[in-house]
Amino acid sequence: MWLDETFNLKYPLLEGGMAYVGTAEFAAAVSEVGALGQIGSGSMPAAMVRAAIHRVRELTDRPFGVNVMLMNPAADEIAGILAEEEVPLITTGAGSPGKYMSMWKDAGCKVIPVVPSLALAQRMERQGADAVVAEGQEAGGHIGEQTSMVLWPLIADNISIPMIAAGGIAAPRQVRAAIELGAEGFQLGTLFLSAEEAPIHPAYKEAVLKATDTKITVMGRTGGVPCRVLKNKFSRDYMVKEREGADIQELEELLIGSLRSAVEHGDDEKGAFMMGLAAAQITEIKPLSRLLEDLFRGVNIPPSGKPPVRHHSEDISEDTIVR
Amino acid sequence: MWLDETFNLKYPLLEGGMAYVGTAEFAAAVSEVGALGQIGSGSMPAAMVRAAIHRVRELTDRPFGVNVMLMNPAADEIAGILAEEEVPLITTGAGSPGKYMSMWKDAGCKVIPVVPSLALAQRMERQGADAVVAEGQEAGGHIGEQTSMVLWPLIADNISIPMIAAGGIAAPRQVRAAIELGAEGFQLGTLFLSAEEAPIHPAYKEAVLKATDTKITVMGRTGGVPCRVLKNKFSRDYMVKEREGADIQELEELLIGSLRSAVEHGDDEKGAFMMGLAAAQITEIKPLSRLLEDLFRGVNIPPSGKPPVRHHSEDISEDTIVR
Repeated sequence: MWLDETFNLKYPLLEGGMAYVGTAEFAAAVSEVGALGQIGSGSMPAAMVRAAIHRVRELTDRPFGVNVMLMNPAADEIAGILAEEEVPLITTGAGSPGKYMSMWKDAGCKVIPVVPSLALAQRMERQGADAVVAEGQEAGGHIGEQTSMVLWPLIADNISIPMIAAGGIAAPRQVRAAIELGAEGFQLGTLFLSAEEAPIHPAYKEAVLKATDTKITVMGRTGGVPCRVLKNKFSRDYMVKEREGADIQELEELLIGSLRSAVEHGDDEKGAFMMGLAAAQITEIKPLSRLLEDLFRGVNIPPSGKPPVRHHSEDISEDTIVR
Repeated sequence: MWLDETFNLKYPLLEGGMAYVGTAEFAAAVSEVGALGQIGSGSMPAAMVRAAIHRVRELTDRPFGVNVMLMNPAADEIAGILAEEEVPLITTGAGSPGKYMSMWKDAGCKVIPVVPSLALAQRMERQGADAVVAEGQEAGGHIGEQTSMVLWPLIADNISIPMIAAGGIAAPRQVRAAIELGAEGFQLGTLFLSAEEAPIHPAYKEAVLKATDTKITVMGRTGGVPCRVLKNKFSRDYMVKEREGADIQELEELLIGSLRSAVEHGDDEKGAFMMGLAAAQITEIKPLSRLLEDLFRGVNIPPSGKPPVRHHSEDISEDTIVR
């Protein structure tokens, strides 16, 4: 696949750059076992991002990435640091990275934006992205509207850069399904929460193991930004505030603090336990090495190469899609 | 697969019993080309259901089904007719068909409830269902919360009756992905809307061809029953009413009338154009025979048989799941 061939990986797999979870130490541990770990820079100040990059390089010689949340007020400064540091992979969320693209490409960074729709994937291709992560709404945390079953092939068939599949993968069956749907690599978040090495509170890991399909919900669909989390006191309180018409900015601030409460304190009252629907399949905490072996057990990773078929591109004018 | 072997079909495929769309004539046409067509009895009175069954039998000797919407006030009477008529397949939605199960099984009908979660699939298995249709929320019309990528393998791995995959299938890639995810057959709705023979207004078919991924939305997530439709004047008006706190019953009545407006008149002002996310892939109206040939092109249909692996069942007590 494109992803493992491009970064010389044992597994064609990115660890989704999760805020608070994607620490330098965890990213390095993921890269050491043969996938590609990412620093989740989330709402970090710029200096902290630089320190995390240095720390990863102390811990591993393997390639790694940094996920940039473009709504971070320090995004411009962080973008400059990523170029200066020649970070091997940059993934982006919550916006369009167009204005940083040439700076990053000049520095030799690979740029892979996370996209929730075909229109955005096509815009990223035009802006010079190396690939896109197509993320279905089964993922944890902030999500879009499309689902993996439909989004992955729609994007794979209508762009000429590689499509990395994200959202709903936690077992070999889903890896094989993603290959059928056109993936040139995978990005996982939720399964990594069940890694022994994941730097999250034991109560958070326990919550992932115990979650059943109907215990996971989406907050923010009415009045905020859609975000997939475990149902608990916090999610119920948030949804009451949402229905009462709270300001989006206020809701987002509430959420960021609450993710930290979950990661650091496992606080069931105040914590936002972000997780994807795939948590319902996860029943065991494993060391990273075994987690990845099990995920790819019996999977035949094909060589890279887009299939020649294009079903859709000539039928949709750009104008139709982007609006 | 279980589905084609059980009903002696050319294709292991059910046409989802769509209200107003699943007429006797259309169901018969689907069965004639080698899949299994269904009468969508929706809110039909009982006498109309019996007449539709007789009409299908005039048109074809092939097996067919009837979908029963259990919230139909005439559900008890319809249930009795299905047993009397010894309908080959009964699928059910919007509730639990437990109280009819022994009557239907005694009459030799196969019973396949449509389920949106693992807990309901397990309950249906205990009640004696022959299989379940596991429907991801990418489907059109009334939907649940889970997505196909996660729901299908979760159910396939945790029940011992067959899992029929529904939600998000419109191309060979998705058929192959569903096989990887444990399907013993498929149910499609949206793709059938693009069949030449589909008894819907030309403007509705045109809307399916033109729909892009971001033009489809879910109404009813806040105050009604979640339902996936095309974004148009009706869906916007509905969501305003919903936010204003309209009664669920009132919203549902509004919806049923509006589906009829879409099917019969193609009315963009008052019509609910129900369709799944897979509509974004559909660009051509085809006769049923070619539509099915193209859907299964290059697909290798495996023989029936559940894989021996069970990842989850011993880890979840029934008590944990059902509540």
